Amino acid sequence: MPIGVFDSGLGGLCALKELHRIMPDTDLIYFGDTGRTPYGTRSPETIMKYAGQDARFLLSKNVSAILIACGTVSTVALNALKISLPVPVCGVVSAASREAAASTKNGKIGVMGTGATISSGVFEHELKLINSSLDVTSVACPLLVPIVEYGFADDEIAFLAVKRYLSQITDAGADTVILGCTHFPILRKMMEKAAPHIAFIDSGAAAAREIASAFSGKGGNGDIRYYVSDTPANFNKTAKVFLGGELEIKAERVEIEKY
Amino acid sequence: MPIGVFDSGLGGLCALKELHRIMPDTDLIYFGDTGRTPYGTRSPETIMKYAGQDARFLLSKNVSAILIACGTVSTVALNALKISLPVPVCGVVSAASREAAASTKNGKIGVMGTGATISSGVFEHELKLINSSLDVTSVACPLLVPIVEYGFADDEIAFLAVKRYLSQITDAGADTVILGCTHFPILRKMMEKAAPHIAFIDSGAAAAREIASAFSGKGGNGDIRYYVSDTPANFNKTAKVFLGGELEIKAERVEIEKY
Repeated sequence: MPIGVFDSGLGGLCALKELHRIMPDTDLIYFGDTGRTPYGTRSPETIMKYAGQDARFLLSKNVSAILIACGTVSTVALNALKISLPVPVCGVVSAASREAAASTKNGKIGVMGTGATISSGVFEHELKLINSSLDVTSVACPLLVPIVEYGFADDEIAFLAVKRYLSQITDAGADTVILGCTHFPILRKMMEKAAPHIAFIDSGAAAAREIASAFSGKGGNGDIRYYVSDTPANFNKTAKVFLGGELEIKAERVEIEKY
Repeated sequence: MPIGVFDSGLGGLCALKELHRIMPDTDLIYFGDTGRTPYGTRSPETIMKYAGQDARFLLSKNVSAILIACGTVSTVALNALKISLPVPVCGVVSAASREAAASTKNGKIGVMGTGATISSGVFEHELKLINSSLDVTSVACPLLVPIVEYGFADDEIAFLAVKRYLSQITDAGADTVILGCTHFPILRKMMEKAAPHIAFIDSGAAAAREIASAFSGKGGNGDIRYYVSDTPANFNKTAKVFLGGELEIKAERVEIEKY
């Protein structure tokens, strides 16, 4: 049985890629909610509704586990999904928080995420559970998602935006930053340029490593199937930014409101 | 009977404000699809579906006419809505095109819009119908919507993004530019700084003037009611950027998928 991966749009493809790298023989099913992306600026109620539909679609494809490769859903809806779904569910928060707590030397950690992720306070809560003396600075970075999706990741605009958002974290003296949105690893070079002494933790890749350690891939051919809620043409094209042209993409459309 | 105004999100509020200024006694109903914004990066099929639901919601409120205060819907779905709806429908394209054609001195016009608006080619088609010798340069500007919505309208980031997008238009020698997305007037100062010799046409305001000239406001008290598809809190707050604090905002939530 395949593992299901979903995201509000394209960002989860980085986590999918990492999962496929670690578990090359496991079949994977990806759903990107491109008809309703982005989630990070919406209310918790709307995010819960959308995330439930996304998960029920993956269940209809008989997945054995679900990786929520979306920082927003992982912070807003993970507990509700864990309770209501009949398969194991893994989000990006706990794995990334553990890696960050292990990485920091001065006990000061920054979190960058969408508006909904930061408002939820979930990363901060998880980090404090691991080590209550950690000093956490969280910053909502809503402009970074469109900067990636609209092709400005290598532009001075990206550098300025990253610098604006990172300044609060560097002012607070953090030495480790969690990239709490799965789009942000695309901006990693810009971030390292703006704050060269900080260690950046990719939350999607951390979650992929977590789910791979919990499930031994049985059977399967390493097939990956892609589904989206808008027409697939744009997805097939933009997905190459995330996958680096290594995996072939041919997505099918889903009427997600029906799930 | 009220006039209905809808947009994918907040941008249409500029057009609403202009309509209220011209027709202060007419009741207005605004719907912003904040649960599914932005439209401009989605496929025509998805935009058509969403726009149909938006219009049917306004009809359920007994509107006498509909102003589509959204460049994307006006370019992708206007004709389909005109045919299928029982009330007059006005988009932003024809009014803005007429104002631009009247404004240009050298016959060279630029159009800035979302990806879907520019792909549709509708502004170019309309301008050529008015005067086939007009030289039109169209540029998709998807990053400008999030720059406005996430509070960077006064930042150097906005100036750089506007400059990047405008450069193709200034290179082509245009003296007049249609702001084909109702978010863009918020960036007007940045645009005038980046291209001081260009005349900018606000398409939402042009459409409001067109619908006001066609309908004499009968009855009504100048009441404005607001509806959104996400929870209203964010809308009520961000709407002030668009309305300049002049109108009180208290939006109600709508389950738009049901229409």
